[in-house]
Amino acid sequence: MAFLQNAWYCVGWSSDLADKPKSIKVLGKELLLYRCADGTAVAVSNVCPHRFAPLDCGRIVDDQIECPYHGLRFDRTGACSLNPHGSGTIAPNARLQSWPLVERAGALWAWMGDPALADENEIVQYDYVTDSSWTGFTGYLHLDVDYQVVVDNQLDLTHSTYLHAKTVGAPRQETAEGRDRREYRFHTADGIIHSDAVRRDTPPAPIFRLFQDRPLGDIHAPMSLYLPSNLILDIATTDPGAPKSSGSRLPSAHFITPETETSCHYFFAFFRNERIEDARITARMEELVRHAFVEEDAPMIQKCFDRMGGKDLFELKPVILETDAAAVYARRALAKLIRDEQLKNADA
Amino acid sequence: MAFLQNAWYCVGWSSDLADKPKSIKVLGKELLLYRCADGTAVAVSNVCPHRFAPLDCGRIVDDQIECPYHGLRFDRTGACSLNPHGSGTIAPNARLQSWPLVERAGALWAWMGDPALADENEIVQYDYVTDSSWTGFTGYLHLDVDYQVVVDNQLDLTHSTYLHAKTVGAPRQETAEGRDRREYRFHTADGIIHSDAVRRDTPPAPIFRLFQDRPLGDIHAPMSLYLPSNLILDIATTDPGAPKSSGSRLPSAHFITPETETSCHYFFAFFRNERIEDARITARMEELVRHAFVEEDAPMIQKCFDRMGGKDLFELKPVILETDAAAVYARRALAKLIRDEQLKNADA
Amino acid sequence: MAFLQNAWYCVGWSSDLADKPKSIKVLGKELLLYRCADGTAVAVSNVCPHRFAPLDCGRIVDDQIECPYHGLRFDRTGACSLNPHGSGTIAPNARLQSWPLVERAGALWAWMGDPALADENEIVQYDYVTDSSWTGFTGYLHLDVDYQVVVDNQLDLTHSTYLHAKTVGAPRQETAEGRDRREYRFHTADGIIHSDAVRRDTPPAPIFRLFQDRPLGDIHAPMSLYLPSNLILDIATTDPGAPKSSGSRLPSAHFITPETETSCHYFFAFFRNERIEDARITARMEELVRHAFVEEDAPMIQKCFDRMGGKDLFELKPVILETDAAAVYARRALAKLIRDEQLKNADA
Repeated sequence: MAFLQNAWYCVGWSSDLADKPKSIKVLGKELLLYRCADGTAVAVSNVCPHRFAPLDCGRIVDDQIECPYHGLRFDRTGACSLNPHGSGTIAPNARLQSWPLVERAGALWAWMGDPALADENEIVQYDYVTDSSWTGFTGYLHLDVDYQVVVDNQLDLTHSTYLHAKTVGAPRQETAEGRDRREYRFHTADGIIHSDAVRRDTPPAPIFRLFQDRPLGDIHAPMSLYLPSNLILDIATTDPGAPKSSGSRLPSAHFITPETETSCHYFFAFFRNERIEDARITARMEELVRHAFVEEDAPMIQKCFDRMGGKDLFELKPVILETDAAAVYARRALAKLIRDEQLKNADA
Repeated sequence: MAFLQNAWYCVGWSSDLADKPKSIKVLGKELLLYRCADGTAVAVSNVCPHRFAPLDCGRIVDDQIECPYHGLRFDRTGACSLNPHGSGTIAPNARLQSWPLVERAGALWAWMGDPALADENEIVQYDYVTDSSWTGFTGYLHLDVDYQVVVDNQLDLTHSTYLHAKTVGAPRQETAEGRDRREYRFHTADGIIHSDAVRRDTPPAPIFRLFQDRPLGDIHAPMSLYLPSNLILDIATTDPGAPKSSGSRLPSAHFITPETETSCHYFFAFFRNERIEDARITARMEELVRHAFVEEDAPMIQKCFDRMGGKDLFELKPVILETDAAAVYARRALAKLIRDEQLKNADA
Repeated sequence: MAFLQNAWYCVGWSSDLADKPKSIKVLGKELLLYRCADGTAVAVSNVCPHRFAPLDCGRIVDDQIECPYHGLRFDRTGACSLNPHGSGTIAPNARLQSWPLVERAGALWAWMGDPALADENEIVQYDYVTDSSWTGFTGYLHLDVDYQVVVDNQLDLTHSTYLHAKTVGAPRQETAEGRDRREYRFHTADGIIHSDAVRRDTPPAPIFRLFQDRPLGDIHAPMSLYLPSNLILDIATTDPGAPKSSGSRLPSAHFITPETETSCHYFFAFFRNERIEDARITARMEELVRHAFVEEDAPMIQKCFDRMGGKDLFELKPVILETDAAAVYARRALAKLIRDEQLKNADA
């Protein structure tokens, strides 16, 4: 499997660089992130080209990273700025790879492909982290699975009433035949893949009961995927029949970044627009979300992925349900983007 | 290495299904075992054909298993009985593999090959678990080794006086030259492989001292292998020279079921015919057996297997002793059965 | 990667055989070391040729090792001396490989190649362990890395001021441009590879402050590599400008023995010539050295090695500094020795 290189991937929250450098592996590359004296965050390789030492264990001296093994220093562009030994000669290959890094609304985004193609406007918008009229939390989870099965999981939220009934899922609404009365719509627009669900006249999920009092209402759950793997779920509960904008909102971000072919980073954020002054609600929400992700989603996704035995999803000829429409479309669209990128690179 | 498919393999004790489903991997296949309302135990695939979720985490509803991830339901034959989403259409490939499962004298047996060939009469007989005139215990051990080295271990009980002197092994009886005075006979009859040993005028093994008082006696230790990998050791101690049927008996079952090429399940049972009302003796016997298996056999077998480096036993040109006759014969007989089965399948 | 077979490798300290046999894997071979009644230490294979049982778990009977699984016995030459079963026949292939083993100045050395070529005079000399006019300690570390990166580490002690500033490293002495004022000389003589450093008018490393009082002095740090992988660092601090022989000496041994292609044994010894009666100094020195090796060197070397992804160092086109001269020369010299040995074996 190849990755889409020309894309912005979330590599952390701004707070990750509060006091020291951070290392993170992205698309198989070891990145070192650190903040310069002027506040700018930069991304260079975390591997010293001398003996392959991990630079994140080193110290920052005048915006340069000093290798903790033999003391070579590299500046924010990745150039070697000091060889303290012998005559001090700096070899031409003494250079760290570097990547465009952008800090946007509390998140750090790295562009992993051709720097000339990096366009900050393509970064997915989720402005709640730094907007004081909203409150919530950010988090992180490491998963030992192909990032695409995490995207699959988010694009098919029917799992929520089965797996997350005690945390973030709305209760089942079954017909006499045992079918779920959830309304579902898959569509695409401007390259964004929409997997939208609505439930009407339903009791809210446990997480909504923490900050709104409707015993029954409508739940609007539009999930948007920005390829390759960044998702926004702009969920809200409203009075029955009322417009979504009038509701109690809980927009969440799900930024999924491939680490290797069989592991990924999951950066998440949940922000709400009501009772924002109550920190105890926030703490309880974070607890529920962590439980849902760590105890419910992660083990399930892990077991499913392990049973795939390293094979591609379609090669396994899975049963495909109507509610898989978005996930199937997304996988095919991403495969095409990757193929196009590879053809272009082969031409160049 | 291939497995013999057309065979009954032990997949559990009846008590394993007392209150919930059970999952077990057999010959590389993921099985889900559960008990229906009428008491019948069934075996279907534990892998949902939609996203490969582990079904054993789901709930049983009207003899159907409900997938814990997205709620699909499957009946006891493996057919999908409900798709709760969208229009509820059930795809033709929405089906779980199923296997013949028989419950016999307290054990669960699955037939892994062609269902048309399954004959319950071929299940090895060990009736003590459900016979109230005997008492004892059943147990289970998971081993990270090829199941054949566990069979080897059982077919050559000379190891017992060396490895199990403090638990289940009789003391050494050495000649002046340091040779063991154990009598040994290997023979086959009706497809059963017999590896029989007798010791005369010998103090009994520690496990026998728990329920019989002879300071010296004869030990009759006939081991029978029912291919591929189910063994019965019908051991007894008697007064010197007395017939075996007059003795203190301790017949044990050793049902070994391949999990993968490098791991297996070991279901064991030990039942005795004397002092059967004394539960403290049973508890102490179980302790000795667990110690023998967990602390003595398992580490030894594991280390031996690890040193084989994934190679076939014969390829390693091992020293073969006279007392390896049964194990060598068994390996060759099993290899022939597997080869014949493969040729037959290739023809079909 | 191949290993140099015709060489002495350290396989333990004499004290390792104080009361029981020892097993150690060397160049991929499982060795069993044990001491005979006459005090001689011998090395035979640790793998029983019958079922591959680990012999080090067995007992020694009259200078023979008894297999803990089925009781076969082997003498100090590796010949099978007893088969206790059946007729007692001993098969011709019932034999353990054996290796020349020499005990020299407190260390055990095994010759892994053609026994006819074993020459004890080629064992590296480090006589302090058994010389009562010196005091110190021996130790052992297991590392999951190719042994050559440990040799690299020792041949380039520039890392000491960065990685070991709090333990065994001398403080940095920087020029205005940030360069280290350490004097360095690489040379070879009689097949020995020398990587020598001198620091002048410098405060001593923390480990020297434990047994000598010079606030400032010269540090002489000549490292010698005896191929394939045994190193002696004959370090001393002196009064400024005084000859090395007048100094406080702390000669250390670093005997590195390949276990597999990706793991090795590290036998170390540190002995001093001053305040040798003070056991508290020795204990504190050992603490510092353990901290330096376990907390500083080992994690760094491990991370560097892991990032090499199983590739050869030169294939990765590393930046090579002037101070890498000895390490680069040593790798090439060793590769040549291995190549020559292989050619010779192919001819034979």
